[in-house]
Amino acid sequence: MEVQPVQIETILLTGGLGFIGSHTCVELYKYITEKNQTQNFHYKIAILDNLSNCMPSVENKIRSILKESYPEVDEKEFFSFHNIDVLDLDALNKMFQSFADKRENVNFIIHFAGKKAVGESVKNPILYFENNVCGTLNLMKMVEKFQIKNFIFSSTATVYGETDNCDEENLLNPLQSYAQTKTCCEFLMKAMCAAHPQLRMVCLRYFNPAGAHSSGLIGDSPSVYPNNLFPFLEQVVIGKREKLYIFGNDYNTYDGTGVRDFIHVVDLACAHISAIDYLFKLTDTKNFEAINIGTGSGISVLDTVTTYSKVIGRQIPYEFTKRRDGDVGQLVAKAEKAQKILNWKAVKTLEDICRDSYNFIQKNPNGIQ
Amino acid sequence: MEVQPVQIETILLTGGLGFIGSHTCVELYKYITEKNQTQNFHYKIAILDNLSNCMPSVENKIRSILKESYPEVDEKEFFSFHNIDVLDLDALNKMFQSFADKRENVNFIIHFAGKKAVGESVKNPILYFENNVCGTLNLMKMVEKFQIKNFIFSSTATVYGETDNCDEENLLNPLQSYAQTKTCCEFLMKAMCAAHPQLRMVCLRYFNPAGAHSSGLIGDSPSVYPNNLFPFLEQVVIGKREKLYIFGNDYNTYDGTGVRDFIHVVDLACAHISAIDYLFKLTDTKNFEAINIGTGSGISVLDTVTTYSKVIGRQIPYEFTKRRDGDVGQLVAKAEKAQKILNWKAVKTLEDICRDSYNFIQKNPNGIQ
Repeated sequence: MEVQPVQIETILLTGGLGFIGSHTCVELYKYITEKNQTQNFHYKIAILDNLSNCMPSVENKIRSILKESYPEVDEKEFFSFHNIDVLDLDALNKMFQSFADKRENVNFIIHFAGKKAVGESVKNPILYFENNVCGTLNLMKMVEKFQIKNFIFSSTATVYGETDNCDEENLLNPLQSYAQTKTCCEFLMKAMCAAHPQLRMVCLRYFNPAGAHSSGLIGDSPSVYPNNLFPFLEQVVIGKREKLYIFGNDYNTYDGTGVRDFIHVVDLACAHISAIDYLFKLTDTKNFEAINIGTGSGISVLDTVTTYSKVIGRQIPYEFTKRRDGDVGQLVAKAEKAQKILNWKAVKTLEDICRDSYNFIQKNPNGIQ
Repeated sequence: MEVQPVQIETILLTGGLGFIGSHTCVELYKYITEKNQTQNFHYKIAILDNLSNCMPSVENKIRSILKESYPEVDEKEFFSFHNIDVLDLDALNKMFQSFADKRENVNFIIHFAGKKAVGESVKNPILYFENNVCGTLNLMKMVEKFQIKNFIFSSTATVYGETDNCDEENLLNPLQSYAQTKTCCEFLMKAMCAAHPQLRMVCLRYFNPAGAHSSGLIGDSPSVYPNNLFPFLEQVVIGKREKLYIFGNDYNTYDGTGVRDFIHVVDLACAHISAIDYLFKLTDTKNFEAINIGTGSGISVLDTVTTYSKVIGRQIPYEFTKRRDGDVGQLVAKAEKAQKILNWKAVKTLEDICRDSYNFIQKNPNGIQ
């Protein structure tokens, strides 16, 4: 009797060692390990990262988490790392070709790689357009050349601009450079889906990711100057900064500070798994969706500090300072579409976020080393 | 007595041998020739073109027009041509450096270069995003490196999507790949202007350019398959096509055919001169403007055929066929902002457009050779 060889497919995570990428990798490994046990079709994970905003050690931290969750699976067989920049078209070509040569074709890209510091983007738009837009364009060249069918993209709530109604059907209103680059990528994806009906793409518009993996091994550990609230909060909590500067207390919000929709990074990672599952099962001819990924509830920066203070049992010092370039007053998800289309919703609370953030920073007081 | 050397500045027209670029070059030459006579400050024109959608002979046709208008000026001294692709960053660097070395710095770019066939863009978005977005990004690198202050960009009315109100303040709604690439370029320009307050940029959103120079030497002569109404009309008029196919007669417009705002290419060229003049005189801190360039009146494709038929004294045969990918029913300029900000309005009529188009195609039955 002839044995059919197992067919292998690779799921590629660009920027897979970054904050959201690394957490998604962990959840994705669970997903494929369970899938691989039940069918004659094996998935592997490939991470691509240029290490520009993360430590190389994240790879081994992810491996530790995987080994602990699935000691019976040899994670080396199902998880590879590639130190490649998405701007390096030759290196991309070689990597995709090597997967094709091994008959482990990439049929799924989750594209996290990109620059994400709003302030830096406002100062240096060329750097951001090149990395984010041209980087995505390079991946689209791979999509065409290697006939990759599925694509999930890290977009952002900031594509909405300043609005009380972050509805996915809104016309986009990106008000600063970072948001503008992400909007351009969304346009590119729409154009690709219109040109090639066999493609299936989802833009996930992230609200404010925060928290960390419960192991404390991975979390938000930017190599460059932090841009988001939680990395600043963590530095204050750990005594690296004297106090938190809250940018603006004169916004038109319930307490004057910015109102955001903080989402636990593990919830966010799970949204990607739901999106993969959605794309695998998609039979509809509508092949492009943009979907908000948030909790649907807004909380002020000030209330976030209060919650964090309660969780750690001491008051976090803060001071109000002037608004920051590129920030808007309020940005809260309309979260119904994710539930309807992806059958996903956030389950973790702000307390969970603060607790996991605290656990992470205590274990990594100097960030991931 | 020591004589002060004349200071020289170069105005660069990318895609300057194309339809709109070549007409703008002619009007710009008039502008700088008059300016050069009255001040100790001389402007030169440099054209950059990769010849991908025009004949090299356009350069000499432009020179003929210039010589005829200003026989006393040696046009060679004030007008140079550079066969360069905006995607070739090395060649761009060398060209800008050579101007700097000659002390003829470029301080003004009018960026026409780009791909413009809507149908082709829908089929091949990667080609369009690369040429239009990455091409513009390369020029922005030059803007930063060589401290170029002024930038005028060829945008398009199609950034509005389908709307009865093409107001410059609208959120953009680009519905197909070509329009999406131009929207990305507008975002890039806005981001650059936000990052660098000394920059001054204008996006001109063209409605439907048509007609030709009164000399009949230059006009719309695409090397690739024509995309716009007038090149098709001209081929029918000259007997190269049996009849005109009108794409769609079931639009929600006054006669069911598409309604457009046709603007004479010489009017459009003059809008660029007005924009240059506006930027030279700008003292305002608002350093980015998007401005519609159209007549403000819509006319149906069917009525355009009727007008053309009257102008040439015979009925142009046509047939209705199905709608074309990427077209919208109606697109007519709100033209007030151009008049207010640029002190410009269209002065030529649809009859002028048809007459000049007819003159051009009679003199160039096989296009520009």
